[in-house]
Amino acid sequence: MQGLSCGTSRIVGCRFSVYPMTDNFVEVIKGALEEVDSSKVWQQTDDVSTLIRGRSEHVFDVAKAIFVHAAKTGVHVVFNGTFSIGCPGDSDADTYMSEDDVRLNEQSSQKEQVEVASQFALYPLNNPDYMQIIADQKEVAEKHGTFTKGVHYASRLDGDANDVFKTLEEAFVNTSKTKDQSHVTMTAAISANSPSKKDK
Amino acid sequence: MQGLSCGTSRIVGCRFSVYPMTDNFVEVIKGALEEVDSSKVWQQTDDVSTLIRGRSEHVFDVAKAIFVHAAKTGVHVVFNGTFSIGCPGDSDADTYMSEDDVRLNEQSSQKEQVEVASQFALYPLNNPDYMQIIADQKEVAEKHGTFTKGVHYASRLDGDANDVFKTLEEAFVNTSKTKDQSHVTMTAAISANSPSKKDK
Ligand SMILES: [Ca+2]
Repeated sequence: MQGLSCGTSRIVGCRFSVYPMTDNFVEVIKGALEEVDSSKVWQQTDDVSTLIRGRSEHVFDVAKAIFVHAAKTGVHVVFNGTFSIGCPGDSDADTYMSEDDVRLNEQSSQKEQVEVASQFALYPLNNPDYMQIIADQKEVAEKHGTFTKGVHYASRLDGDANDVFKTLEEAFVNTSKTKDQSHVTMTAAISANSPSKKDK
Repeated sequence: MQGLSCGTSRIVGCRFSVYPMTDNFVEVIKGALEEVDSSKVWQQTDDVSTLIRGRSEHVFDVAKAIFVHAAKTGVHVVFNGTFSIGCPGDSDADTYMSEDDVRLNEQSSQKEQVEVASQFALYPLNNPDYMQIIADQKEVAEKHGTFTKGVHYASRLDGDANDVFKTLEEAFVNTSKTKDQSHVTMTAAISANSPSKKDK
């Protein structure tokens, strides 16, 4: 279970997996990892998921880069994960908070054009205003031109992977600032190269 | 975005995907779906995920059955989804709440032995006691013999798919009863046949 006491660090975490729907999924993931510089985040991988923790900028930078480099192979690839802030439970990775804000993978991610469909949901915890806060993030997505529609329990975004990740990051960061020391999580499923007809 | 008004229905929803890591992922999914009787849930599939809604029993019954029948092929398969209760936003599927509680797929799911590793997280929304509620569910998992350990932002379960889904269902249902008309979500990643060494 998550720890009972919340820390005061504003470290961001993302527990995620990248699923390549192919027999050589191991090679696709290893290939993507080799192209990503994750030196500004704390990283741990087990048999179910990968966890990265650090400054918000670097967590989103590394998550996007791993997905983009896997998806550029043309294989049907899905990123599925949860971003969290406000209750790390411990301080394992606090030293990573002193990194500067220069994103190490932005340039190589921007070089790729990967069309994606995404469904995401925001969960501002212990906050009576949470439904309004969630609704407000629709404007962020509309500003980035990625908002497609609300679906049950989530919102749908479509567009270039770089624009979709930018939208997710901004919605998450905005939400994390709506309350002092807020605890917020955000789930996101991001799919590329699906053979199914897009539901836009 | 999710709607701004919460309904009063206690309908449960699960938005999930099953990811078979193989070139013939479409066949694996279609094969699993053919073996599952989903007549007691409302179901909608798009290019990113599948949504099922109905009584708690049937949502867990159908989610488990689709995963188990995909995983019994021996392929590395992951279920990744979010269970929700308390804020459906509308009443599309309310007629399904009048189904009886007889699970249509329990017998066929119990016939399969699928060893899984799972990471899950509970999010009781708008509830100041949420961290204690989450912590209390550790006992449920220990009772079922599936609890392995807490990890960052989640808890790890290991065991037979039937036992792991039973644990998830009980933790979710318990949490949904801690407050009147509570809004609760639960994420779960459930992996079978992974080539990676188990982190137990
Ligand atoms: Ca059927």
